Amino acid sequence: MDFPFTPLIKKLPATIPFIGPETFEREVGRVFKARVGANESAFGISPKARQAMVDAVDSVGWYNDPENYDLRLALAQQYNVSVDEVGVAGGIDDLLGLVVRAFLEPGQVTVASAGSYLTYHYHIAGFDAVSHTVPYRNDRNDLDALFDAVHKTGSRLVYLSTPDNPTGTWHTAAEQQAFIDALPENCICILDEAYFEFAPGDAVLPIHPHDPRVIRMRTFSKAHGMAGVRVGYAIAHPEIVTSFDKIRLHFNVNRIAQIGALASLGDQVFIRWVVDQVRAGRAEYETLGCDLDLPTLPSATNFVAFDCGTPERAQHIHDALIERSVFVRKPAVSPLDRLVRVTVGAPEERAEFAEVLREVC
Amino acid sequence: MDFPFTPLIKKLPATIPFIGPETFEREVGRVFKARVGANESAFGISPKARQAMVDAVDSVGWYNDPENYDLRLALAQQYNVSVDEVGVAGGIDDLLGLVVRAFLEPGQVTVASAGSYLTYHYHIAGFDAVSHTVPYRNDRNDLDALFDAVHKTGSRLVYLSTPDNPTGTWHTAAEQQAFIDALPENCICILDEAYFEFAPGDAVLPIHPHDPRVIRMRTFSKAHGMAGVRVGYAIAHPEIVTSFDKIRLHFNVNRIAQIGALASLGDQVFIRWVVDQVRAGRAEYETLGCDLDLPTLPSATNFVAFDCGTPERAQHIHDALIERSVFVRKPAVSPLDRLVRVTVGAPEERAEFAEVLREVC
Repeated sequence: MDFPFTPLIKKLPATIPFIGPETFEREVGRVFKARVGANESAFGISPKARQAMVDAVDSVGWYNDPENYDLRLALAQQYNVSVDEVGVAGGIDDLLGLVVRAFLEPGQVTVASAGSYLTYHYHIAGFDAVSHTVPYRNDRNDLDALFDAVHKTGSRLVYLSTPDNPTGTWHTAAEQQAFIDALPENCICILDEAYFEFAPGDAVLPIHPHDPRVIRMRTFSKAHGMAGVRVGYAIAHPEIVTSFDKIRLHFNVNRIAQIGALASLGDQVFIRWVVDQVRAGRAEYETLGCDLDLPTLPSATNFVAFDCGTPERAQHIHDALIERSVFVRKPAVSPLDRLVRVTVGAPEERAEFAEVLREVC
Repeated sequence: MDFPFTPLIKKLPATIPFIGPETFEREVGRVFKARVGANESAFGISPKARQAMVDAVDSVGWYNDPENYDLRLALAQQYNVSVDEVGVAGGIDDLLGLVVRAFLEPGQVTVASAGSYLTYHYHIAGFDAVSHTVPYRNDRNDLDALFDAVHKTGSRLVYLSTPDNPTGTWHTAAEQQAFIDALPENCICILDEAYFEFAPGDAVLPIHPHDPRVIRMRTFSKAHGMAGVRVGYAIAHPEIVTSFDKIRLHFNVNRIAQIGALASLGDQVFIRWVVDQVRAGRAEYETLGCDLDLPTLPSATNFVAFDCGTPERAQHIHDALIERSVFVRKPAVSPLDRLVRVTVGAPEERAEFAEVLREVC
C-alpha cells in the first residue's frame, strides 16, 4: 500500500537525536558502569520532591491539571513575574517544538550555531523550516556571526544556549543583553538556559518578561535532577505563552511530574548543595584533564568538555570509553568534534571514569 | 510589538478542549464532592503498578528511554504483534496529534462524527486541516454517513471511537470490519479504543497490524486507572509507527509512567476486577435513571450517558449538579446535547451523585 503520508513525512528520516544509553546497552548486552554521557544529575532529587512524588502515585487516577496552574503560579512567584508569563511543557524539548511551530512556516529560516542542541534542529526539520548555522568560535557561540546571519537571512528566530551545551562555555549577562538589543525587530531570541543554576551570577540575564524579544527556557532536568519526569518552562511575553496554548498538548506534564517539580522548586537549599557538588566535580575533571594532556574547556554547567586535540583522537577516546562501559558523548560537528563531553558524575562514577580514561590514554 | 507568528497561529484560539475540574474549583473556591465528569477511574491502580512507580521515583535523575522499548516489547507480546507495530506516546491525545500531522496537509479533510472527541478536532485545527463531520444517529456513530462522507470528500483519515465517547455505545467487531473493508484505498481508519477493556467480547475487532488501513489507539488512562501519568499506544502497520518516529517528542512518556504502565500491563487480574466494578456501577446508574425518568444509553465504557430528553433539561441538570459540587459533563453538539455524561464512580461517589441527582430532579 502507498500510505497517504504528507510529502514532508515521506522525506523525513526516522531518527532519535540522542541515542539513549539503554539502546547501547541492549545492543552490547551489558550495562554501563558509569553513565556520564547525558548530563543527567548524579546528585539525586530533593527529599521534598521525592516524598511529594511518592505520595502523588496514589492520585494518578486523576488527570493532571491541563493548565499546570500550581506550578506556573509557583514559578511566577519565584521569578517575580505574572502567571501568564510562564508556560510549562514536557521539557525544553517540547517547548522548542512549540516555538518552531508558532513562528516558522515551511521554508522559513532560523539561525543557530552548527553543533548546537540537536533536538532544536530536529523540530526545525519536522516543521519543514530551515536551519541556517554558523560555526562556533573558540568553543563559544559566536554572537557576531549569529547576529550577521540573522540580518542576512531575515530570520524570525535565533537560538542561543548559555551556559552552552555541548561546550559548557557561557556569555555574560551584558553580552547577552547587547546581543538581544541589537536584533532586528521581529526576531525573537530563544535563550536556552537549561544549565543556568550552575552559572556564575554575572552570566544570568535578569528576567524582563515584558521584553518581547526573548524566550527564556529552563528545566527541572539538570540541577533539580528530574530529567526522567519531563518538566521544562518558558518565561516570555504573555502573547508568546498564549501562542503555546493554541497548539500544545494539554496534558503535557504528567501529574507526578507537576507535583514533584513544585516541591523541588521549593527546596532551593537542595539546589545549592547540588551546584556545590557539581563545582567540586568539575574541578576534579580539570585536574584530571591537565594530568592527561586533555585540557578542559571552562564550564558553567554540570559537564566538562575534554579537548582531545583532533577529531580522530576524540573519536578514539570516546569509543574506548564506551567499549569499557563508560557512557560519554562526542560532538559530531567541527570544530567541536575534538571534544569529549563528560557529565560530572557522583564521586564513585568520577573515580571509575578517571581510572578508565587513564587506561585509555 | 507585532509578533512574527505564523498566519495560522494568529488565527487559532487559545483553548483547552476540556476545562479541567481544577479550573472550576479555582473559580468557585471549593472542591467537588464527586469527581465523575472526566471518565477517570475510581478504582485505583494495580498494586504492582503502584509499587513500581514508587520505586521508580528514585531513578528520575535518568532520562526515560526515548524508544519506550520495554513497554513496547511487553505490548507486542501481549497482543502477539511485532515491536515495530507498537508506538507509545503521551496518551491517545498525543497519538492523535501525530496522526493528523503525518497524514494531513493544510486544507485537507478528515471525517468524524459531530460531537466526537474534542482533542482530535483541536489537532485538526492546529495543523490547519479541516473536520468534515456527520451527525450521530440513534446515539451511535453513523457508519453509513461516515462512509459516504469519506467518499464524497476523498478524506485520507476517518475517526471512529468504539466503544464511543461521549455516548458509551459501540459497534460489533463485524460492523467495524465491514466498515474498514469498504473504505477506499488510501483512507486510514483511526480506531479509538480507549474503553475497549469494558466492551463485550464481540465488540473488539481482532488485531491484524499488517492491515494498513487501521490505527488502533489504546490507553492506560481508563481501565488501568493511570490518566495522570499519560501513556497511550497505537497498534498499526510498521510504516505508520515509523512515521511517528519522524516527528514525535522522544522523551514523550516519563520514566515513572513507562515503568508503571509496564507493571500494570502485567496485572490483568486487577484489570478484570476494575471491569467488574464498573459493570456493577453502570447497573446502579441504569436503575437510578429508570427511577428518575432519565433513561440511560447502553454503555460499554466506564461511564453512562443519561438522556434528559431536551438540551434545556440536560443543561439544567448539568448546571445544578455542578452547583452542588458534583462534576459531570454535557456534550455540546446536537443531538447529543440532551445527554449528561457521568463516570462510574466509587460506591460513595455514586451514592453522593444519586442523592444530588434525586434532589435536582
